Amino acid sequence: SEEIYIGSYLLARLEELGVTSMFGVPGDFNLGFLDLVEDHPTIDWVGNCNELNASYAADGYARVKQGSVGVLLTTFGVGELSAMNGMAGAFSEMVPMVHIAGVPSLRQQATKPMLHHTLGDGRFDAYIKAAEQFTYSQAILTNTVSAGAEIDRVLSDCVIKGRPVYITLPTDLAYAKTSSDRLKIPLPRHPSPNDADVESFVIDEIVKQVAEADGDVVVIADACAIRHDAIDELKDLLYKTGYPVYCAPMGKSAIDETYERYGGIYVGSISRPEIKEKVESAKLILSIGSLKSDFNSGNFTYSIPTTRTIELHSHWTNIKYAEFPNIGMKQLLPKLTARLEGGKAKALQLEVPRFDAHVPQETDDIISQAWFWPRMSKFFEPKDVIIAETGTSSFGILDVPLPKDSVFLSQILWGSIGWTVGSTLGAALAAKDCNLNRTILFVGDGSLQLTVQELSTMLRKGLKPIIFVLNNSGYTIERFLHGKERKYNDIVNWKWTGLLGVLGDLDGTLSKSYTVNNKSELTELLENPKFVAAEVLQLVEVMMPKHDAPRALQVQAELSGKTNQYAL
Amino acid sequence: SEEIYIGSYLLARLEELGVTSMFGVPGDFNLGFLDLVEDHPTIDWVGNCNELNASYAADGYARVKQGSVGVLLTTFGVGELSAMNGMAGAFSEMVPMVHIAGVPSLRQQATKPMLHHTLGDGRFDAYIKAAEQFTYSQAILTNTVSAGAEIDRVLSDCVIKGRPVYITLPTDLAYAKTSSDRLKIPLPRHPSPNDADVESFVIDEIVKQVAEADGDVVVIADACAIRHDAIDELKDLLYKTGYPVYCAPMGKSAIDETYERYGGIYVGSISRPEIKEKVESAKLILSIGSLKSDFNSGNFTYSIPTTRTIELHSHWTNIKYAEFPNIGMKQLLPKLTARLEGGKAKALQLEVPRFDAHVPQETDDIISQAWFWPRMSKFFEPKDVIIAETGTSSFGILDVPLPKDSVFLSQILWGSIGWTVGSTLGAALAAKDCNLNRTILFVGDGSLQLTVQELSTMLRKGLKPIIFVLNNSGYTIERFLHGKERKYNDIVNWKWTGLLGVLGDLDGTLSKSYTVNNKSELTELLENPKFVAAEVLQLVEVMMPKHDAPRALQVQAELSGKTNQYAL
Ligand SMILES: Cc1ncc(C[n+]2csc(CCOP(=O)(O)OP(=O)(O)O)c2C)c(N)n1
Ligand SMILES: Cc1ncc(C[n+]2csc(CCOP(=O)(O)OP(=O)(O)O)c2C)c(N)n1
Ligand SMILES: [Mg+2]
Ligand SMILES: [Mg+2]
Repeated sequence: SEEIYIGSYLLARLEELGVTSMFGVPGDFNLGFLDLVEDHPTIDWVGNCNELNASYAADGYARVKQGSVGVLLTTFGVGELSAMNGMAGAFSEMVPMVHIAGVPSLRQQATKPMLHHTLGDGRFDAYIKAAEQFTYSQAILTNTVSAGAEIDRVLSDCVIKGRPVYITLPTDLAYAKTSSDRLKIPLPRHPSPNDADVESFVIDEIVKQVAEADGDVVVIADACAIRHDAIDELKDLLYKTGYPVYCAPMGKSAIDETYERYGGIYVGSISRPEIKEKVESAKLILSIGSLKSDFNSGNFTYSIPTTRTIELHSHWTNIKYAEFPNIGMKQLLPKLTARLEGGKAKALQLEVPRFDAHVPQETDDIISQAWFWPRMSKFFEPKDVIIAETGTSSFGILDVPLPKDSVFLSQILWGSIGWTVGSTLGAALAAKDCNLNRTILFVGDGSLQLTVQELSTMLRKGLKPIIFVLNNSGYTIERFLHGKERKYNDIVNWKWTGLLGVLGDLDGTLSKSYTVNNKSELTELLENPKFVAAEVLQLVEVMMPKHDAPRALQVQAELSGKTNQYAL
Repeated sequence: SEEIYIGSYLLARLEELGVTSMFGVPGDFNLGFLDLVEDHPTIDWVGNCNELNASYAADGYARVKQGSVGVLLTTFGVGELSAMNGMAGAFSEMVPMVHIAGVPSLRQQATKPMLHHTLGDGRFDAYIKAAEQFTYSQAILTNTVSAGAEIDRVLSDCVIKGRPVYITLPTDLAYAKTSSDRLKIPLPRHPSPNDADVESFVIDEIVKQVAEADGDVVVIADACAIRHDAIDELKDLLYKTGYPVYCAPMGKSAIDETYERYGGIYVGSISRPEIKEKVESAKLILSIGSLKSDFNSGNFTYSIPTTRTIELHSHWTNIKYAEFPNIGMKQLLPKLTARLEGGKAKALQLEVPRFDAHVPQETDDIISQAWFWPRMSKFFEPKDVIIAETGTSSFGILDVPLPKDSVFLSQILWGSIGWTVGSTLGAALAAKDCNLNRTILFVGDGSLQLTVQELSTMLRKGLKPIIFVLNNSGYTIERFLHGKERKYNDIVNWKWTGLLGVLGDLDGTLSKSYTVNNKSELTELLENPKFVAAEVLQLVEVMMPKHDAPRALQVQAELSGKTNQYAL
């Protein structure tokens, strides 16, 4: 049996998972391992500007590269803690990420000297305790015998549960030898099978409900269908049954938005009226992978009684009030499809509203939110990766359709601003691997300020995303929630079009930057074939009014105003 | 008894502690409280670009404004977790910081809806559990009755222990009323008194040791003397006894480096030879507030037997091998001074090497590390605040003296790069309050990339630090530790002199940027009175060789190479 470095063992497993990029920042507790990474033939080290951005990048990479994982490498304490918010976001939004922290040698961990990056009080387990809160499982590597099994355990968890995991790699263990035998057996990547008896009972029950509803069924697709890898099975159900389908915001792009049986975004009372009516009047709702967070459910305003709902989840199923644990949708769906496809003719009679983008005629040339999003919708192309930051962007884009085979990323549950910038880096790298088209980012001026330096890494890696910066003089989404004229919602106005020149495009050959002040200028740009072709990194500063918000945000703001109580 | 908002109560206590600036980023769980902050007559809201930078700023503010605290305000989850590394750094380096996190209303905390910024699994206590690892104490506010007492408890802890504390402020509680009665009693700010019997025993014992050493005593001042507010007492001891004094790196600037009985930096085997000889040959070492971390002790190479050491600490005392708990230096020192001042004449006979900066004559015009630091030393003025980032800077500056009444900040134990940038913002604001002189930052090109956006906030606040960016093509300190020619130690070269124009100085009136390529250019700049006067924010890009490091770093690197074992 051949012996290999534990560091190499870990890399072999990551390669097996399809990892081609690793994100992070060097530090003296991971430099040894980094030699192995830099020398690895298929895994590329993407040195980031800081660890939070790196974690966002790994997150974006994992979201686009379905079936693989995002990998983050940090150094002890200072590095790993800087990425905490990124890890928690991946946990919350169910993104498979592997966080490898380079930590002191086993001898140092035993004797606990007062090393730099320690808390100075001898606690060497504090960072692990914090990481436990935000990762599904942890591999605290302590010896050569169990290291391989420990690595395998958490990597399997990561893929199967779709949640981040955490590995501590001591400096000495990275170069300690372990048997490579385990590598002959591929990592387990799928959840255990549904119990056959329970599953067939559940299927019978669902079929009965569909019959009772006389085929008046509507499907809502949501986040977990994407995260738990059930999209193919879901599409098969839809195409074979003909049921009308709608997406929750976090399910956007799970279903091609050009599909003729697709009706648009259902988000409780924030939905367009015709969508709300169609969904809420159906006799039966088949909800696939739902995640009812505030912003994903119109502030909890689903007006659908439980007695008309069947919910399929990653590893459980609900039929009305009955819960069936350990019955997961990925395996259930194909069997269900087979039983339901007979009803297609009937289902096709159910009307589905057309979800399209209507560019309004406005009398002035100001770039309003109401005009901007439908106009952008016409700019998108199939297979584009489209990313929208929390703020007016994440609300504005909901109301317009995206093209076939496009991929949509947003962080609607976690909502950490700045996330899209790192995420765009990771997404653009993954898009190359997956033969996708352009990567297009919409980010607010406020949000971009949190993580701006990562534009530099995009230049370094030769990436060519198109970045629309919405310059509306600050935190507009907040102005709608509270403090319309407050100074705390103002930001410093940057020279946005100067950024790329400073952050790495020193001779101006790697990027282009534009400011568009009105509809005419934006239209002209969007129709310019050189711009459309995205041959270099492009940044577009879009001048928009400070007190303008998309329809969905205006309604959401009214609803949350009632929830967040202030005396004033 | 008058009733006030809990939010106002908290602000009243912060005002009492001398707080004039609050750092952080708005978010919908703190916007209500922010109204109170914005309307507060003496506390200024400094909106930062992101939360990590904000925490660094609060840290820098607290370090300069001795006796006060640094305050950080964040929003639930996304905000507070982004600042985790900053909080841990303040814990490690013993900086009094108050982290206020705006959190959901009490009703939401009870019903646990799936709000944005939650983990999606109903755990509303995960962020608290993480914060517990990195703060001394926590006030989880849950009602109007105990809120005032809880706030007082942690604020007292913060000041007395010199460690960060954490307060969760629910949206509704910020505007709930509480009695203002407690505000009539000032916050307790001092540790409980030493036990008189033990203290006098300890003093007798120390006096005996000094006599046995025949007055051959050397003092080493270190971090905790600064952090635990014992500088005045220490100086009094030194002036009245005449003992030679040296500082550890983290104690640098505790003692005026122009003081004739001051001999320079003692850092184990990394010390200059004449300093090492003088310290290690003394019969008795009086160590004040020592903190023996790796980089603060020359990788644990103090060559001083415990049998020749007396250590005074914040709340304990060690005489050789004997430990005396709860005997703190602040109260002990004045009594000790009274007993020891008789020996002054004898002590003055002990020779102290002169600690000065010798600018070497070099044959070329390249800005070497060996030339740079002594040259910079001549540029400093009394009362300057001088900040050095982890990297070649934090090592280089050790070997040169700083002027009288200057303040020196560095993060030698925690060592999180990027820290100085936020810290400079906070330090410059505090420097105004404290009538200090210029704020001068030395930061590596690699480090500045982590937190660069905070330059923008300096411009917004009209601050005028002088920022020296050491452009040595990447992570030079790491090249000395491992991976001399590795790509992972390279960074993207930025147009450093373009930064300020892009990040807010749109018309070029608020700042000036320079590049100096050689000794002559730097010298000319340093002699330019307009530059010296620091009338606008100034950034100087200093071109330095990639493979050059200060003497102290070269030795340290050799020592750590032995500690971090890699097989390669
Ligand atoms: C890390 C983090 N800090 C703070 C917030 C609170 N927050 C939510 S949206 C927002 C403002 C976003 O402003 P901008 O990006 O300009 O968006 P727009 O103006 O388009 O709404 C803030 C500060 C957050 N969600 N995440
Ligand atoms: C947050 C954080 N991430 C990573 C590190 C590891 N680290 C220590 S020093 C350093 C390089 C600093 O480079 P630079 O600022 O250019 O300094 P210099 O070249 O002057 O040594 C790095 C990456 C760290 N200390 N903190
Ligand atoms: Mg904005
Ligand atoms: Mg450097």
